[in-house]
Amino acid sequence: MIGIFDSGVGGMTVAKAVEDLCPHLPLVYFGDIARSPYGSKSPEVITECCRRNTDFLLSQGAELVVIACNSAAATASGTLRREYSVPIIDVVEATAEKAAAVSAAGGIGIIGTRATVRSKVYEQRLEAIRPGCRIASQACPLLVPLVEEGWLDKRETKMILRRYLHSLQQQQVDTLILGCTHYPLLGRLIQSRMGKRVRLIDSSAEAARHLKEFLDKNPRIGSNMAESGQQSRFFVSDSTGPVQQLADRIFGRPIHLEKVDV
Amino acid sequence: MIGIFDSGVGGMTVAKAVEDLCPHLPLVYFGDIARSPYGSKSPEVITECCRRNTDFLLSQGAELVVIACNSAAATASGTLRREYSVPIIDVVEATAEKAAAVSAAGGIGIIGTRATVRSKVYEQRLEAIRPGCRIASQACPLLVPLVEEGWLDKRETKMILRRYLHSLQQQQVDTLILGCTHYPLLGRLIQSRMGKRVRLIDSSAEAARHLKEFLDKNPRIGSNMAESGQQSRFFVSDSTGPVQQLADRIFGRPIHLEKVDV
Repeated sequence: MIGIFDSGVGGMTVAKAVEDLCPHLPLVYFGDIARSPYGSKSPEVITECCRRNTDFLLSQGAELVVIACNSAAATASGTLRREYSVPIIDVVEATAEKAAAVSAAGGIGIIGTRATVRSKVYEQRLEAIRPGCRIASQACPLLVPLVEEGWLDKRETKMILRRYLHSLQQQQVDTLILGCTHYPLLGRLIQSRMGKRVRLIDSSAEAARHLKEFLDKNPRIGSNMAESGQQSRFFVSDSTGPVQQLADRIFGRPIHLEKVDV
Repeated sequence: MIGIFDSGVGGMTVAKAVEDLCPHLPLVYFGDIARSPYGSKSPEVITECCRRNTDFLLSQGAELVVIACNSAAATASGTLRREYSVPIIDVVEATAEKAAAVSAAGGIGIIGTRATVRSKVYEQRLEAIRPGCRIASQACPLLVPLVEEGWLDKRETKMILRRYLHSLQQQQVDTLILGCTHYPLLGRLIQSRMGKRVRLIDSSAEAARHLKEFLDKNPRIGSNMAESGQQSRFFVSDSTGPVQQLADRIFGRPIHLEKVDV
């Protein structure tokens, strides 16, 4: 199975994109709602959570692991690659690649949680792929709570976005990485604030595309999964009403969430 | 020692109030930053966290436990009282008592996290102490992230408060319970929005007062603690820069935070 983990339900946007691209492959998803959000926690705690999540996905039959959470990928993907032998697909890598490829003038902005911005992993990766590009980053810690409240079009949300995006506008980025799986839900507001000439890069779509490329290069992995006949399963470490609603909304159908203590 | 736990550092306002009222008694504090916030999680997960926190405080020599977090007290204080033999002091009980006592016309408002408001524990307690009082409650899930960002006086914070407090104003409450230990940091803004005739009840101060009353009635407990010669200790399940700053600011001196995996 394709294992996917996230700190919460945001990573379900990655799972949905994977399902759309590889509809014949079974998924096992784990959302660590009980410890959510990761973005404000220390690297040590985030890394420990990532180990637990990976162990759980492997125990459920995952043959590769997609780190759908930018904060987790930015903090712990190196550690997980050292400690586990299964392939690790990393939302940050996929997203940085795309941004470097599409940026016209090499002015790339990044918005994310504190953990993602602090890690500087997007900067390192962009520098490696496209040396000399201009990079500006901004931590936006209030956006996840605003999305989780469903305040997707409120005046307060627009004002907070204006404050966060101001410095990126001044630095004239032509490409903006939405470095958190919650942010595409604010995509319209962000686009209208940044102007239509700025290209937004959605990390969920890029993670799914990256996974698809990996499977195309390694066809045996995918064909083994397809033949296994397993059904996709969705696990969470805590389940509440808003979590269930968000999951159903992302997939456009009722999703059976299984609660598990990891 | 006096054990105090909270989902994070907000409960340090309780610890500080306890230190001010009982300066000769040693405290052991635990802030569950790694699982913070509790307010958006399910009753099952909150209760399990409270058990772990209580076990930890007892292992450190606590002889009574103060639940400093409103979400935790609202959800799990009954369970903890059934399962543990040590006295449990509960921020909700103390705060409800005070509000019922000071409200002139019996119009009492409550603001808190989703978990606190959903539990209806303030309503139940107020009804028991002062039957017939009019109660209005409002969940304010964005206030904790705003306080943790230090946005204590920003225009966006004022607008969000106006939205949250609107219905309470219309219901003409004369007393407003700040049912979360983060909210006193927004006390000035809340007071100015509600008007100076509305009395704000600070749950941190009330929890400390309640504890002091309990110790006055049970003098042996306090004198045993005072004679033990132990020093106060502050534990957290995760430590980051903002957490350390907030702890130092609340106590007005550098606080040594010990990280522990609970």
